[in-house]
Amino acid sequence: MSNSAPTYDVIAIGNAIVDIIAACSDDDIAALGLNRGGMTLVDADGADTLYAAMGQATEKSGGSAANTLAGLAQLDTKCAFIGQVANDQFGEVFAHDIRAAGITFETPMRDAEPPTGRCLIFVTPDGERTMNTFLGAGQFLPAAALDEDLIASAAILYLEGYLWDPEEPRRAMRRAIDVARAAGRKVAFTASESFVIDRHGDDFRAMIDDGVIDILFVNESELATLTGEDDFETGFTALAAKVPVLVATRSADGAVASANGERASVEAEPVAKVIDTTGAGDQFAAGFLSGHAKGEPLERCLKRGAIAAAEVISHYGPRPETDMMALMAEKL
Amino acid sequence: MSNSAPTYDVIAIGNAIVDIIAACSDDDIAALGLNRGGMTLVDADGADTLYAAMGQATEKSGGSAANTLAGLAQLDTKCAFIGQVANDQFGEVFAHDIRAAGITFETPMRDAEPPTGRCLIFVTPDGERTMNTFLGAGQFLPAAALDEDLIASAAILYLEGYLWDPEEPRRAMRRAIDVARAAGRKVAFTASESFVIDRHGDDFRAMIDDGVIDILFVNESELATLTGEDDFETGFTALAAKVPVLVATRSADGAVASANGERASVEAEPVAKVIDTTGAGDQFAAGFLSGHAKGEPLERCLKRGAIAAAEVISHYGPRPETDMMALMAEKL
Repeated sequence: MSNSAPTYDVIAIGNAIVDIIAACSDDDIAALGLNRGGMTLVDADGADTLYAAMGQATEKSGGSAANTLAGLAQLDTKCAFIGQVANDQFGEVFAHDIRAAGITFETPMRDAEPPTGRCLIFVTPDGERTMNTFLGAGQFLPAAALDEDLIASAAILYLEGYLWDPEEPRRAMRRAIDVARAAGRKVAFTASESFVIDRHGDDFRAMIDDGVIDILFVNESELATLTGEDDFETGFTALAAKVPVLVATRSADGAVASANGERASVEAEPVAKVIDTTGAGDQFAAGFLSGHAKGEPLERCLKRGAIAAAEVISHYGPRPETDMMALMAEKL
Repeated sequence: MSNSAPTYDVIAIGNAIVDIIAACSDDDIAALGLNRGGMTLVDADGADTLYAAMGQATEKSGGSAANTLAGLAQLDTKCAFIGQVANDQFGEVFAHDIRAAGITFETPMRDAEPPTGRCLIFVTPDGERTMNTFLGAGQFLPAAALDEDLIASAAILYLEGYLWDPEEPRRAMRRAIDVARAAGRKVAFTASESFVIDRHGDDFRAMIDDGVIDILFVNESELATLTGEDDFETGFTALAAKVPVLVATRSADGAVASANGERASVEAEPVAKVIDTTGAGDQFAAGFLSGHAKGEPLERCLKRGAIAAAEVISHYGPRPETDMMALMAEKL
């Protein structure tokens, strides 16, 4: 481990999950008692019950940080992923798709139960996704599975807040942070969802205060939960003073970022029809980081984020399905 | 078993398969040496090799006859399916999706190897699909797995030519034909692909000559292979003399049908953009049968077929993703 030139632009640690996506009605959401628009953790039995109630579905690889890498890899960014699947068919699907995206993925499959994680995603006619995640094998990612040389070889270590819940991956991510910082690399973190901050806000605030997080992604409600400030401006200003690069997404209201005192904002990109909002935040992060990794101006990084988010919400599934280099060339 | 009023409109026996679908370039098809636009059987190793060469993919339940039922079930038609999956995650996906479509499916999962069948589908920019099928558990559907009361309770037994290749399902289908005929039901058959007729044409011609097949679906090349006539009109007329209901699809040129001496034809429905032709024939059959099962005039049955085929080629995947009752109401 040294401060030599990085081999990878971004290495991420995140949930290794297959999304099971089905359209549903608003009545279905109510009848099933789902947390509309949110992400709820379910156990194996809960997942089975919800799956039985779900309509005909489509399976696509998912996982928040893995989705971000799939976007980054399309934007001339060299990426590696660390995450835990089981040795089963969904595990093969996840591994295939992330490698087919051009991403290095060498975490060994886990032979024991539980199976590979899955996320049951109910998409209402307005395009809003309601996620119900069975973490499965993902919650057993051990620190021992980390390839520390690989982590040290990436300019940015990107971590997913969702994975802060289970104990083993949390320990693994703490170790990964140490490895990255010892190698002089940057640490990026996405808060993932307010409920994660409800449970682990003290951890996150301590890491922020300790200067461990270089790049932080939040949405409005995560910002409020993290700072305790209901007013966006007040919360943003307070947090921006503590984090070198802060990116706050505001759904249809665009996004705001600050970097070392500078501040910029972007409008949301127009979308003809919102089909499925799954992956919007993940792809915003991908677009932003693809510019940031190349040292582009803050406003241009934000614009990249907005373009990537608009692409992914225009179709089912959490990863780009368009030639993103061509789209960026057209829209930037 | 009796000639009492049927409980089901259609029961089908077919491959129980999960489709793995990815976009690819024309160069990919050439580099991989694939049979462009066709269906090729591959073994487990062949499937693994092709999968490794495939881009990021999407999984959707498939299987020709199962796709037809999924279309029929949306068109006010009561359906049951018989097919063999293994006790694995793809088996669960297939079983979930067919039941979620409202179709009775009770064939027990198979506990032994091989795994559930899968079809690797490469879709070129013109929307043409190139299929590579690993039959997996499907080729071991035993006659013992047939629910004979269920077969006898359906007005139409629908059989998939693809499944005539493996020995056990062929035996099962022969048994099912006997059961259906003894109960006074009709037998419908889709030829599936010319290569199946290359191998089993004598079987099919014998069944046709014996009057065992009441409703036959072919496309142009299957018609030519089956009749030995290169001229469509000559082949169609010859075959129509032997089969009570004959439906011949001609891709962009529409379709022709004859029923007990009457003849009708339909133009192809216009499609804004062909995305993926997977399932076009399956959904044509679904549309046609949904009308035929209700005793509608031949021309209207054909129109239903054309509408259903146009819907499925306008998106990825082999089953309808639109409210088909509403679409029929609009277009008929």
